[in-house]
Amino acid sequence: MRQTSRSFWFYTLLLLILMSASDIKMQRKKRVIFFGDSITQAGVQPGGYIDLLNTMLKEQKLDGNYELIGAGIGGNKVYDLFLRMDDDVLAKKPDIVVIYVGVNDVWHKQSHGTGTDADKFEKFYAAILAKLKAQNIKTIVCTPAVIGERTDFSNQLDGDLNRYSNIIKNLAKKNEVPVVDLRRDFLAYNLKNNPENKEFGILTSDRVHLNAAGNKLVAESMWKAISQIR
Amino acid sequence: MRQTSRSFWFYTLLLLILMSASDIKMQRKKRVIFFGDSITQAGVQPGGYIDLLNTMLKEQKLDGNYELIGAGIGGNKVYDLFLRMDDDVLAKKPDIVVIYVGVNDVWHKQSHGTGTDADKFEKFYAAILAKLKAQNIKTIVCTPAVIGERTDFSNQLDGDLNRYSNIIKNLAKKNEVPVVDLRRDFLAYNLKNNPENKEFGILTSDRVHLNAAGNKLVAESMWKAISQIR
Amino acid sequence: MRQTSRSFWFYTLLLLILMSASDIKMQRKKRVIFFGDSITQAGVQPGGYIDLLNTMLKEQKLDGNYELIGAGIGGNKVYDLFLRMDDDVLAKKPDIVVIYVGVNDVWHKQSHGTGTDADKFEKFYAAILAKLKAQNIKTIVCTPAVIGERTDFSNQLDGDLNRYSNIIKNLAKKNEVPVVDLRRDFLAYNLKNNPENKEFGILTSDRVHLNAAGNKLVAESMWKAISQIR
Amino acid sequence: MRQTSRSFWFYTLLLLILMSASDIKMQRKKRVIFFGDSITQAGVQPGGYIDLLNTMLKEQKLDGNYELIGAGIGGNKVYDLFLRMDDDVLAKKPDIVVIYVGVNDVWHKQSHGTGTDADKFEKFYAAILAKLKAQNIKTIVCTPAVIGERTDFSNQLDGDLNRYSNIIKNLAKKNEVPVVDLRRDFLAYNLKNNPENKEFGILTSDRVHLNAAGNKLVAESMWKAISQIR
Repeated sequence: MRQTSRSFWFYTLLLLILMSASDIKMQRKKRVIFFGDSITQAGVQPGGYIDLLNTMLKEQKLDGNYELIGAGIGGNKVYDLFLRMDDDVLAKKPDIVVIYVGVNDVWHKQSHGTGTDADKFEKFYAAILAKLKAQNIKTIVCTPAVIGERTDFSNQLDGDLNRYSNIIKNLAKKNEVPVVDLRRDFLAYNLKNNPENKEFGILTSDRVHLNAAGNKLVAESMWKAISQIR
Repeated sequence: MRQTSRSFWFYTLLLLILMSASDIKMQRKKRVIFFGDSITQAGVQPGGYIDLLNTMLKEQKLDGNYELIGAGIGGNKVYDLFLRMDDDVLAKKPDIVVIYVGVNDVWHKQSHGTGTDADKFEKFYAAILAKLKAQNIKTIVCTPAVIGERTDFSNQLDGDLNRYSNIIKNLAKKNEVPVVDLRRDFLAYNLKNNPENKEFGILTSDRVHLNAAGNKLVAESMWKAISQIR
Repeated sequence: MRQTSRSFWFYTLLLLILMSASDIKMQRKKRVIFFGDSITQAGVQPGGYIDLLNTMLKEQKLDGNYELIGAGIGGNKVYDLFLRMDDDVLAKKPDIVVIYVGVNDVWHKQSHGTGTDADKFEKFYAAILAKLKAQNIKTIVCTPAVIGERTDFSNQLDGDLNRYSNIIKNLAKKNEVPVVDLRRDFLAYNLKNNPENKEFGILTSDRVHLNAAGNKLVAESMWKAISQIR
Repeated sequence: MRQTSRSFWFYTLLLLILMSASDIKMQRKKRVIFFGDSITQAGVQPGGYIDLLNTMLKEQKLDGNYELIGAGIGGNKVYDLFLRMDDDVLAKKPDIVVIYVGVNDVWHKQSHGTGTDADKFEKFYAAILAKLKAQNIKTIVCTPAVIGERTDFSNQLDGDLNRYSNIIKNLAKKNEVPVVDLRRDFLAYNLKNNPENKEFGILTSDRVHLNAAGNKLVAESMWKAISQIR
């Protein structure tokens, strides 16, 4: 009986150690969901910013530490994210959620008459942040980069992009959430690389959607924020 | 002992009967929530359609059977209802919910660039219906009446009001939910009472918000549907 | 000398008679300018409504009586016609001008935020009519046919199309100018031929621009009005 | 005879001198027309910028040299100016025309769906300049000042205001016409005097229309340009 008992405890302990080890390992593979619109939908394609992030992770031998999931749907605005966040985000138990939304909220005002009022944008954005916080999910927010790459604030929708970016940054401060300020990063890049004040072709292919340089810039800017999260 | 016991049972029984009676009475007082925008927000004011419904209930000595609650907020669109339905509707455990929304979804396309795309309107409306059904709450839906009272379909937003009304009626059919077709009722009334094809002043004070005749028509149309629900 | 003189006068007289006859014939060749937007710009292409009118004229051996000129430019609204009418219409000394405008004035409200207010539409349209009348040019006006072919007035822009058509018809009455009511003709055709309430594919290829059936209908409707003008 | 003749010539000469003097004086009284929208319509009211310019002229004893005429109509866009320039400007034989337009061309895109496309704005603006040049009328152009006074380019329409101002400045350079850069002047003033980044209340009463400080700034900026014209 004692022998049995001894070996029983030995194996039990071993099992616990192994489980614990595997548990630690599982804890360390952080699940990151990128939650957004068509830019994020394209992000998982070869050469897209999420694909580039995966390549970066491999190069740095960190691909064992992160699982990156794209949850972008074309045309989505902030309230579309709110509607589908239970199914597409919370149900997947992420450790980190990167919210990248706002372009359509501004753009569709002009193109379809179906954008989002600034006060409603803030209200829905805050509701998303609150739901993520309630689940102890780490959140990163991004400002909407560009609709047009002119650097003298003469793109039609620059006023609203600046305003909605301010809303996001204020919410981030209030909620102590890191910001990837893509709007600032894109402007800085264009000030250096767009001397002809062109509308597109520097970081976007069509004023909005990312070309290779744009995907690279987004991936790098996001990685700075994601890598900081413990 | 037997006497005591007998009287004990007598009073116990009496109490149970009274409790049961009061319980029946409480069950029969139906809580109705009117869920909508500024039209419904104004509905609880003196002379508003919900106020008129209360008067009608009193006149018919049915005020003991219904409790009417206004849950209208100015400027609300379908997604605003979705955002606040937990707090403003479900938490109040209604028996019946009357949804009256759609005017701003159409109107704000033109006035603010922040209306609701038809496909998104349907998606959010369906999500509200599903949540109410999941709680076994009886639901009544209304079509958006008018933005302008001209009867020859020359009001700027008639096309979309007709389309969004079709969406609501199709959802109602699919969900086996009764429809208060205010758009049809308003047109019929105007065809009789608006021979000069005026934009407002017949049922509305400003093309959208209800005057006395408009509130009366809405109260009557809604009562037909509410009174049918068992 | 007398012989010579006689024959000289004979031939001179003959020449004058012939010249006079050809002159009469030239006078009778009416110059018709079709003044409009992309629909008219496409009208001169093979199969376009102006091309079909030319074919109809040949079949009826009337091609010697009419010269048809397309003056359509894509995206034009009523004020664009006003801006270019000196160069593109008056300078060409037409006998008849067919004005076919209004679709973009309504459509661009929704698609670009750059449509035309109803009162401005009327003001510029009246200014064009006045300038043509001052030159004794016969004018025919057309109502804007469709933006979407649904027959239950559930196309988004039906309200404004009806309203702007009313404006055109009222101006026509006031100025005693014939109307080609394309909007009425297209609706009648669709009520017969569009039982599925489709948005396009009956008379248009894309809700706005004419397919073969649409070009045929426009050519026929216009011919009824043009052929009446003496 | 000689007496008569002498006095005849004396009085004739005197008359000619007086006529010539009055002629010189009439020539020196420059007629200035301010051609614009509601801002200019309000400009002739007591305290309006044209009224202030008149006061400035009196203070500098220059009121004998200038006649200021307001030709502003609320809601006007560039094509409205083009439509009425024969009646409201050219017929009045001005020496100088100050064009102050563009706010509604941008604003009504968002508020009514009836703004002006950038390319059309340029085309009509150029047509106005060409007509004035053909009459040898000196022209001054103004950039549209503000729709919202925030200084961080987060007013909704800043993008288009910057763009349309660029169009005006490019046309001015091409036509060698002086520019009153109100947009630059308003921003400079707000950067000094609007530390709280308020939307209105510094130079405007409602984001667009001028308060006392705004009228003063416009009067001063315009005077710099008008006083330079010989």
